[in-house]
Amino acid sequence: MIRILRLGHRVFRDQRISSHVFLVARAFGAQKGLYSGQRDRNLEQSIKRVAEQWGGPFSVEYIKDWKQEIKNFKGMKVHLTVYGIPFQKHISRIRRMKNLLVIVGGEKVPPEVYKSSDYNISVSSQPHSEVSSLGIFLYELSGRKFREKFRKAKRKVIPQERGKKVVKC
Amino acid sequence: MIRILRLGHRVFRDQRISSHVFLVARAFGAQKGLYSGQRDRNLEQSIKRVAEQWGGPFSVEYIKDWKQEIKNFKGMKVHLTVYGIPFQKHISRIRRMKNLLVIVGGEKVPPEVYKSSDYNISVSSQPHSEVSSLGIFLYELSGRKFREKFRKAKRKVIPQERGKKVVKC
Repeated sequence: MIRILRLGHRVFRDQRISSHVFLVARAFGAQKGLYSGQRDRNLEQSIKRVAEQWGGPFSVEYIKDWKQEIKNFKGMKVHLTVYGIPFQKHISRIRRMKNLLVIVGGEKVPPEVYKSSDYNISVSSQPHSEVSSLGIFLYELSGRKFREKFRKAKRKVIPQERGKKVVKC
Repeated sequence: MIRILRLGHRVFRDQRISSHVFLVARAFGAQKGLYSGQRDRNLEQSIKRVAEQWGGPFSVEYIKDWKQEIKNFKGMKVHLTVYGIPFQKHISRIRRMKNLLVIVGGEKVPPEVYKSSDYNISVSSQPHSEVSSLGIFLYELSGRKFREKFRKAKRKVIPQERGKKVVKC
Protein backbone atom coordinates (compact mmCIF):
# COMPACT_ATOMS: atom_id res chain seq x y z
CA MET A 1 0.00 0.00 0.00
CA ILE A 2 1.51 3.28 -1.13
CA ARG A 3 0.12 6.56 0.13
CA ILE A 4 1.17 9.95 -1.09
CA LEU A 5 0.95 12.91 1.26
CA ARG A 6 1.02 16.32 -0.37
CA LEU A 7 1.78 19.03 2.18
CA GLY A 8 0.59 22.63 2.26
CA HIS A 9 -1.78 22.70 -0.71
CA ARG A 10 -2.97 26.18 -1.70
CA VAL A 11 -6.20 26.29 -3.69
CA PHE A 12 -5.29 29.09 -6.03
CA ARG A 13 -1.62 28.45 -6.63
CA ASP A 14 -1.24 24.68 -6.39
CA GLN A 15 -4.37 23.24 -7.95
CA ARG A 16 -2.77 21.95 -11.11
CA ILE A 17 0.51 20.85 -9.55
CA SER A 18 -1.26 18.94 -6.76
CA SER A 19 -3.60 17.47 -9.34
CA HIS A 20 -0.62 16.26 -11.39
CA VAL A 21 0.99 14.87 -8.23
CA PHE A 22 -2.09 12.72 -7.62
CA LEU A 23 -2.46 11.68 -11.26
CA VAL A 24 1.13 10.48 -11.20
CA ALA A 25 0.46 8.73 -7.90
CA ARG A 26 -2.51 6.86 -9.36
CA ALA A 27 -0.86 6.01 -12.68
CA PHE A 28 2.33 4.75 -11.04
CA GLY A 29 0.89 2.47 -8.41
CA ALA A 30 -0.16 4.42 -5.32
CA GLN A 31 -3.58 3.68 -3.85
CA LYS A 32 -4.25 6.77 -1.83
CA GLY A 33 -3.57 10.49 -1.99
CA LEU A 34 -3.69 12.67 1.09
CA TYR A 35 -3.24 16.41 1.26
CA SER A 36 -3.00 19.10 3.89
CA GLY A 37 -3.20 22.88 3.62
CA GLN A 38 -6.33 24.34 2.12
CA ARG A 39 -9.26 22.07 1.40
CA ASP A 40 -9.96 21.94 -2.33
CA ARG A 41 -13.07 20.16 -3.50
CA ASN A 42 -12.33 20.83 -7.16
CA LEU A 43 -9.05 18.99 -6.80
CA GLU A 44 -10.79 16.08 -5.09
CA GLN A 45 -13.51 15.95 -7.73
CA SER A 46 -11.14 16.06 -10.68
CA ILE A 47 -9.06 13.16 -9.35
CA LYS A 48 -12.20 11.23 -8.49
CA ARG A 49 -13.42 11.61 -12.07
CA VAL A 50 -10.11 10.36 -13.47
CA ALA A 51 -10.13 7.34 -11.15
CA GLU A 52 -13.72 6.54 -12.13
CA GLN A 53 -12.92 6.71 -15.83
CA TRP A 54 -9.47 5.14 -15.92
CA GLY A 55 -9.72 2.87 -12.91
CA GLY A 56 -8.08 2.57 -9.53
CA PRO A 57 -8.09 1.94 -6.74
CA PHE A 58 -7.19 5.55 -6.04
CA SER A 59 -8.83 8.16 -3.90
CA VAL A 60 -7.91 11.51 -2.43
CA GLU A 61 -8.56 12.64 1.10
CA TYR A 62 -8.06 15.94 2.85
CA ILE A 63 -6.36 15.76 6.24
CA LYS A 64 -6.32 18.56 8.75
CA ASP A 65 -3.50 17.36 10.91
CA TRP A 66 -0.55 16.22 8.83
CA LYS A 67 1.72 15.96 11.89
CA GLN A 68 -0.61 13.43 13.43
CA GLU A 69 -0.89 11.60 10.11
CA ILE A 70 2.89 11.22 9.84
CA LYS A 71 3.25 10.34 13.49
CA ASN A 72 0.55 7.65 13.45
CA PHE A 73 1.57 6.09 10.16
CA LYS A 74 2.62 2.46 10.51
CA GLY A 75 5.22 1.84 7.86
CA MET A 76 8.09 3.61 6.18
CA LYS A 77 8.00 7.36 5.66
CA VAL A 78 9.89 8.75 2.72
CA HIS A 79 10.16 12.48 2.14
CA LEU A 80 11.04 13.62 -1.36
CA THR A 81 13.22 16.72 -1.25
CA VAL A 82 15.94 18.24 -3.39
CA TYR A 83 18.13 18.38 -0.26
CA GLY A 84 17.96 14.66 0.47
CA ILE A 85 20.18 11.72 -0.34
CA PRO A 86 20.11 10.40 -3.93
CA PHE A 87 17.25 7.90 -4.09
CA GLN A 88 19.50 5.24 -5.59
CA LYS A 89 21.13 4.75 -2.18
CA HIS A 90 17.96 3.66 -0.40
CA ILE A 91 15.56 2.50 -3.08
CA SER A 92 16.09 -1.25 -2.68
CA ARG A 93 15.44 -1.02 1.04
CA ILE A 94 12.36 1.09 0.49
CA ARG A 95 11.10 -1.32 -2.18
CA ARG A 96 10.84 -4.11 0.37
CA MET A 97 8.39 -2.22 2.57
CA LYS A 98 4.72 -3.06 2.39
CA ASN A 99 3.40 0.20 3.75
CA LEU A 100 4.84 3.36 2.41
CA LEU A 101 4.03 7.00 3.00
CA VAL A 102 5.65 9.23 0.40
CA ILE A 103 5.68 12.86 1.52
CA VAL A 104 5.76 15.53 -1.15
CA GLY A 105 6.40 19.04 0.06
CA GLY A 106 4.91 22.35 -0.89
CA GLU A 107 6.60 25.74 -0.92
CA LYS A 108 8.12 25.56 2.55
CA VAL A 109 8.51 22.26 4.33
CA PRO A 110 8.78 22.45 8.15
CA PRO A 111 12.01 20.97 9.64
CA GLU A 112 9.84 18.49 11.47
CA VAL A 113 9.14 16.64 8.22
CA TYR A 114 12.85 16.07 7.65
CA LYS A 115 13.18 14.78 11.19
CA SER A 116 10.18 12.49 11.32
CA SER A 117 10.75 10.84 7.93
CA ASP A 118 12.73 7.62 7.75
CA TYR A 119 14.42 8.86 4.60
CA ASN A 120 14.82 12.23 2.97
CA ILE A 121 15.59 11.44 -0.62
CA SER A 122 16.25 13.37 -3.75
CA VAL A 123 15.81 12.75 -7.45
CA SER A 124 18.88 14.40 -9.03
CA SER A 125 19.81 17.01 -6.36
CA GLN A 126 18.68 19.73 -8.74
CA PRO A 127 15.56 21.85 -8.48
CA HIS A 128 12.82 20.63 -10.78
CA SER A 129 9.36 19.47 -9.77
CA GLU A 130 7.57 17.39 -7.17
CA VAL A 131 5.64 15.88 -10.08
CA SER A 132 8.70 14.50 -11.84
CA SER A 133 10.39 13.55 -8.55
CA LEU A 134 7.39 11.50 -7.56
CA GLY A 135 7.12 10.04 -11.06
CA ILE A 136 10.71 8.86 -11.21
CA PHE A 137 10.67 7.68 -7.61
CA LEU A 138 7.54 5.55 -8.10
CA TYR A 139 8.83 4.32 -11.45
CA GLU A 140 12.05 3.13 -9.81
CA LEU A 141 10.17 1.78 -6.82
CA SER A 142 8.18 -0.53 -9.09
CA GLY A 143 11.36 -1.77 -10.76
CA ARG A 144 10.63 0.41 -13.80
CA LYS A 145 7.41 -1.36 -14.59
CA PHE A 146 4.18 0.51 -14.95
CA ARG A 147 1.03 -0.43 -13.13
CA GLU A 148 -1.03 -2.53 -15.51
CA LYS A 149 -4.19 -3.33 -13.67
CA PHE A 150 -6.67 -0.60 -12.97
CA ARG A 151 -9.75 -1.85 -11.21
CA LYS A 152 -13.12 -0.88 -12.65
CA ALA A 153 -11.53 1.10 -15.45
CA LYS A 154 -14.12 2.28 -17.96
CA ARG A 155 -11.64 3.12 -20.66
CA LYS A 156 -8.09 2.55 -21.74
CA VAL A 157 -5.67 3.78 -24.38
CA ILE A 158 -4.66 1.53 -27.23
CA PRO A 159 -1.19 2.84 -28.16
CA GLN A 160 -0.87 4.20 -31.69
CA GLU A 161 2.07 5.27 -33.84
CA ARG A 162 -0.09 8.23 -34.97
CA GLY A 163 -3.38 9.50 -33.66
CA LYS A 164 -5.56 8.51 -30.74
CA LYS A 165 -7.43 5.38 -29.81
CA VAL A 166 -9.35 4.98 -26.58
CA VAL A 167 -11.62 1.99 -26.03
CA LYS A 168 -14.20 1.08 -23.42
CA CYS A 169 -13.23 -1.66 -21.00
CA MET B 1 21.44 18.99 -28.24
CA ILE B 2 18.02 18.43 -26.76
CA ARG B 3 15.28 21.01 -27.20
CA ILE B 4 11.92 20.91 -25.51
CA LEU B 5 8.95 22.50 -27.23
CA ARG B 6 5.97 23.22 -25.01
CA LEU B 7 2.86 23.87 -27.11
CA GLY B 8 -0.08 26.15 -26.35
CA HIS B 9 1.05 27.83 -23.15
CA ARG B 10 -1.63 29.87 -21.38
CA VAL B 11 -0.35 32.54 -18.99
CA PHE B 12 -2.95 32.16 -16.30
CA ARG B 13 -3.56 28.44 -16.32
CA ASP B 14 -0.23 26.92 -17.31
CA GLN B 15 2.40 29.05 -15.66
CA ARG B 16 3.44 26.59 -13.02
CA ILE B 17 3.13 23.48 -15.17
CA SER B 18 5.15 25.02 -18.01
CA SER B 19 7.67 26.24 -15.48
CA HIS B 20 8.03 22.71 -14.09
CA VAL B 21 8.35 21.35 -17.64
CA PHE B 22 11.34 23.63 -18.22
CA LEU B 23 12.90 22.96 -14.82
CA VAL B 24 12.76 19.25 -15.57
CA ALA B 25 14.20 19.93 -19.02
CA ARG B 26 17.16 21.80 -17.56
CA ALA B 27 17.80 19.39 -14.69
CA PHE B 28 17.65 16.32 -16.92
CA GLY B 29 19.92 17.42 -19.72
CA ALA B 30 18.09 19.58 -22.25
CA GLN B 31 19.76 22.79 -23.36
CA LYS B 32 16.86 24.77 -24.67
CA GLY B 33 13.20 25.31 -23.92
CA LEU B 34 10.81 26.69 -26.51
CA TYR B 35 7.17 27.51 -26.02
CA SER B 36 4.24 28.65 -28.11
CA GLY B 37 0.84 29.99 -27.15
CA GLN B 38 0.75 33.11 -25.00
CA ARG B 39 3.97 34.96 -24.34
CA ASP B 40 4.82 34.87 -20.64
CA ARG B 41 7.71 36.97 -19.42
CA ASN B 42 7.30 35.82 -15.83
CA LEU B 43 7.82 32.25 -16.95
CA GLU B 44 10.92 33.24 -18.92
CA GLN B 45 12.32 35.24 -16.01
CA SER B 46 11.76 32.53 -13.45
CA ILE B 47 13.57 29.92 -15.55
CA LYS B 48 16.35 32.38 -16.32
CA ARG B 49 16.88 32.96 -12.60
CA VAL B 50 17.07 29.23 -11.91
CA ALA B 51 19.58 28.70 -14.73
CA GLU B 52 21.70 31.60 -13.44
CA GLN B 53 21.75 30.23 -9.92
CA TRP B 54 22.01 26.51 -10.58
CA GLY B 55 23.81 26.57 -13.90
CA GLY B 56 23.09 25.55 -17.44
CA PRO B 57 23.31 25.90 -20.29
CA PHE B 58 19.56 26.34 -20.41
CA SER B 59 17.44 29.10 -21.80
CA VAL B 60 13.81 29.61 -22.74
CA GLU B 61 12.53 31.22 -25.87
CA TYR B 62 9.07 32.13 -27.05
CA ILE B 63 8.20 31.13 -30.59
CA LYS B 64 5.27 32.45 -32.52
CA ASP B 65 5.11 29.84 -35.22
CA TRP B 66 5.40 26.36 -33.79
CA LYS B 67 4.47 24.74 -37.11
CA GLN B 68 7.43 26.36 -38.78
CA GLU B 69 9.66 25.42 -35.85
CA ILE B 70 8.74 21.74 -36.14
CA LYS B 71 8.94 21.80 -39.93
CA ASN B 72 12.38 23.43 -40.02
CA PHE B 73 13.90 21.38 -37.26
CA LYS B 74 16.87 19.29 -38.40
CA GLY B 75 16.89 16.19 -36.29
CA MET B 76 14.47 13.79 -34.68
CA LYS B 77 11.08 14.98 -33.47
CA VAL B 78 9.51 13.12 -30.59
CA HIS B 79 6.04 13.96 -29.37
CA LEU B 80 5.12 12.88 -25.85
CA THR B 81 1.47 11.88 -25.67
CA VAL B 82 -0.61 9.44 -23.66
CA TYR B 83 -1.91 8.03 -26.97
CA GLY B 84 1.52 7.13 -28.34
CA ILE B 85 3.56 3.95 -28.39
CA PRO B 86 5.30 2.94 -25.13
CA PHE B 87 8.64 4.77 -25.07
CA GLN B 88 10.53 1.53 -24.39
CA LYS B 89 9.97 0.50 -27.99
CA HIS B 90 11.84 3.41 -29.53
CA ILE B 91 14.11 4.77 -26.83
CA SER B 92 17.36 3.14 -27.98
CA ARG B 93 16.88 4.50 -31.48
CA ILE B 94 16.07 7.96 -30.15
CA ARG B 95 19.09 7.85 -27.83
CA ARG B 96 21.43 7.67 -30.79
CA MET B 97 20.25 10.96 -32.27
CA LYS B 98 22.33 14.07 -31.79
CA ASN B 99 19.59 16.58 -32.34
CA LEU B 100 16.33 16.03 -30.63
CA LEU B 101 13.15 18.06 -30.42
CA VAL B 102 10.85 16.79 -27.70
CA ILE B 103 7.33 18.13 -28.10
CA VAL B 104 5.15 18.44 -25.03
CA GLY B 105 1.53 19.20 -25.63
CA GLY B 106 -0.91 21.48 -23.92
CA GLU B 107 -4.64 21.00 -23.47
CA LYS B 108 -5.46 20.15 -27.08
CA VAL B 109 -2.77 19.06 -29.49
CA PRO B 110 -3.53 19.57 -33.20
CA PRO B 111 -3.47 16.37 -35.33
CA GLU B 112 -0.63 17.93 -37.29
CA VAL B 113 1.75 17.38 -34.39
CA TYR B 114 1.05 13.65 -34.42
CA LYS B 115 1.68 13.57 -38.15
CA SER B 116 4.84 15.65 -38.31
CA SER B 117 6.60 13.96 -35.39
CA ASP B 118 8.94 11.04 -36.06
CA TYR B 119 7.61 9.30 -32.98
CA ASN B 120 4.55 9.71 -30.84
CA ILE B 121 5.46 8.09 -27.57
CA SER B 122 3.86 7.53 -24.25
CA VAL B 123 5.05 7.04 -20.71
CA SER B 124 2.66 4.43 -19.25
CA SER B 125 -0.43 4.92 -21.50
CA GLN B 126 -2.26 6.40 -18.53
CA PRO B 127 -3.18 10.03 -17.99
CA HIS B 128 -0.79 11.75 -15.60
CA SER B 129 1.36 14.78 -16.37
CA GLU B 130 3.59 16.25 -19.05
CA VAL B 131 6.03 17.02 -16.23
CA SER B 132 6.48 13.40 -15.18
CA SER B 133 6.35 12.14 -18.78
CA LEU B 134 9.17 14.45 -19.74
CA GLY B 135 11.07 13.59 -16.57
CA ILE B 136 10.94 9.84 -17.10
CA PHE B 137 11.58 10.15 -20.82
CA LEU B 138 14.73 12.28 -20.33
CA TYR B 139 15.84 10.07 -17.46
CA GLU B 140 15.61 7.01 -19.69
CA LEU B 141 17.14 8.87 -22.61
CA SER B 142 20.26 9.56 -20.56
CA GLY B 143 20.53 5.91 -19.59
CA ARG B 144 19.14 6.72 -16.13
CA LYS B 145 22.01 8.99 -15.25
CA PHE B 146 21.44 12.52 -14.14
CA ARG B 147 23.16 15.48 -15.68
CA GLU B 148 26.14 16.26 -13.48
CA LYS B 149 27.75 19.29 -15.04
CA PHE B 150 25.98 22.60 -14.89
CA ARG B 151 28.00 25.39 -16.42
CA LYS B 152 28.45 28.56 -14.39
CA ALA B 153 26.42 27.18 -11.50
CA LYS B 154 26.56 29.51 -8.50
CA ARG B 155 25.24 26.98 -6.04
CA LYS B 156 24.68 23.31 -5.56
CA VAL B 157 23.04 20.98 -3.07
CA ILE B 158 25.15 18.77 -0.85
CA PRO B 159 22.84 15.82 -0.14
CA GLN B 160 21.93 15.31 3.51
CA GLU B 161 20.20 12.54 5.44
CA ARG B 162 18.33 15.27 7.34
CA GLY B 163 18.13 18.99 6.73
CA LYS B 164 19.43 21.23 3.97
CA LYS B 165 22.86 22.13 2.73
CA VAL B 166 23.48 24.38 -0.23
CA VAL B 167 26.99 25.62 -1.02
CA LYS B 168 28.40 28.19 -3.39
CA CYS B 169 30.30 26.86 -6.37
